[in-house]
Amino acid sequence: MALLSVLTPVLVLVLCLVVGILFLKSRAPETSPRGADQAKEPAKKDFRPWVDQDLHDDTEITTEGGDEDEWVEQDEEKDLAHVPYSPRRYPEEIMLQRSKEFYSLMNQRRSVRFISPEPVPQEIIDNIILTAGTAPSGAHTEPWTFIVVSDLETKHQIRLIVEEEEEVNYRQRMGDKWVHDLARLRTNWIKEYLDVAPYLILVFKRAYGILPNGKKKTHYYNEISVSISCGILLAALQNVGLVTVTTTPLNCGPRLRLLLKRPANEKLLMLLPVGYPAADATVPDLKRKHLEEIMVPI
Amino acid sequence: MALLSVLTPVLVLVLCLVVGILFLKSRAPETSPRGADQAKEPAKKDFRPWVDQDLHDDTEITTEGGDEDEWVEQDEEKDLAHVPYSPRRYPEEIMLQRSKEFYSLMNQRRSVRFISPEPVPQEIIDNIILTAGTAPSGAHTEPWTFIVVSDLETKHQIRLIVEEEEEVNYRQRMGDKWVHDLARLRTNWIKEYLDVAPYLILVFKRAYGILPNGKKKTHYYNEISVSISCGILLAALQNVGLVTVTTTPLNCGPRLRLLLKRPANEKLLMLLPVGYPAADATVPDLKRKHLEEIMVPI
Repeated sequence: MALLSVLTPVLVLVLCLVVGILFLKSRAPETSPRGADQAKEPAKKDFRPWVDQDLHDDTEITTEGGDEDEWVEQDEEKDLAHVPYSPRRYPEEIMLQRSKEFYSLMNQRRSVRFISPEPVPQEIIDNIILTAGTAPSGAHTEPWTFIVVSDLETKHQIRLIVEEEEEVNYRQRMGDKWVHDLARLRTNWIKEYLDVAPYLILVFKRAYGILPNGKKKTHYYNEISVSISCGILLAALQNVGLVTVTTTPLNCGPRLRLLLKRPANEKLLMLLPVGYPAADATVPDLKRKHLEEIMVPI
Repeated sequence: MALLSVLTPVLVLVLCLVVGILFLKSRAPETSPRGADQAKEPAKKDFRPWVDQDLHDDTEITTEGGDEDEWVEQDEEKDLAHVPYSPRRYPEEIMLQRSKEFYSLMNQRRSVRFISPEPVPQEIIDNIILTAGTAPSGAHTEPWTFIVVSDLETKHQIRLIVEEEEEVNYRQRMGDKWVHDLARLRTNWIKEYLDVAPYLILVFKRAYGILPNGKKKTHYYNEISVSISCGILLAALQNVGLVTVTTTPLNCGPRLRLLLKRPANEKLLMLLPVGYPAADATVPDLKRKHLEEIMVPI
């Protein structure tokens, strides 16, 4: 008993330490935006952290203001005048016909990696970017920047960065399931079309804006908005007979952002090589799901 | 001293409880995908946790396999035959004309919250969903489900859920900057169009798939893919003269998913009320950015 009483302060000290350690340990991951993710997957050897972890993107994880009305209302907008809106209306049979024709046109779109070097008039690209810019966006922030690269040297620099990161991705990140098939991997990090395509459209999302007072202005749902804009861009390309392949180069964003001198609030979302399909272009013989597999009427 | 020794067991018990409580308390946020977010903003009173925290979405935060080739290649695809691809080619002047006309058509699109109750033929909606289904997707996973609701009672149930959550969002999440303007807020959580529109299209992303062996199959970039698909859907709607407003109801996802009996791997991304514009429809007098504000030629 006496021994115990002597030990009591030690005992208390030890337990306090335990409290402190457990407390800190379990808090740590929370301080990282990727904490939840890292907690899910076992840490990998040679894991290279994302270069622009500083660029926190609140897409999907914001609560404040992330409600549906943020799509259309914001302080600077709430006082806007409302004007009548009466778009063109078609008879039902014309609507039906137009819906069939547009489906037929879009259904012919495929991701094409064999692009012809033939030049394409810049004015057509301008109209396609303008069309992409008609997309809706959270609070009408229009959080997109389309970098249209036709300069040969810049295209080549982009290719070098993408291929280098691609190889690193495969070798270090893809995990054992890939390593057995180096031949296949190799084909995956050679991107000839990045040199060949007359245009590379690099789509950046503006993760936040800067207010006149210098404070950051959140761009709610900026990634969803820019992706919607890309969907309209793909439709516009298909509408004129141009092709692309939708790519999201992993981890190249920061280096490409610096190469293209884009500000820190812009983050690369997609890279689209654009042009006519090569004469010998091929595509994998994929099928699309049937209506009943993707639509549920209620 | 004797007293202390008597108290020792009590003391130990108390400290153990402290350990337990602190440990559990500080772990809680980590088990939530929104933990990082909560850490950024001061905890709010009455904060209501997301119901489907179990649905971890790896969009944007996955590293493994998140490379560009995941868009087009995957184990079940790599052995697919490649077939020639030679889409229709237009003369340059026709391309230019088509690019102008499509821009003009899309530029007339606006988010419309005043929707006419007039019926719209289901076949037109079918073609629009089919068109949305032509979008590219990571590894051709086609990770989208379009729930097309025309049933009056279901639409009303959806409205009740959305309006209830909207009110909660404003009252509990929007923060002080909103609280001063209750009148304005109120207009924000009344969604008459959810009852009125002939169709509500609820767009779910399939965050993951289930393999034959029962294991989860990651749907890389599922949110970007589904958002691109929504962009094409918006283009298809505009092409036939129908209107919608792009909404992303905050926190309604789980309840709507249960209401519509969707599986746990599906997460609500967007809710689109669809129909003809009301005769007296108005839209805020917004302007769109100029080309030089969104495009940078290099």
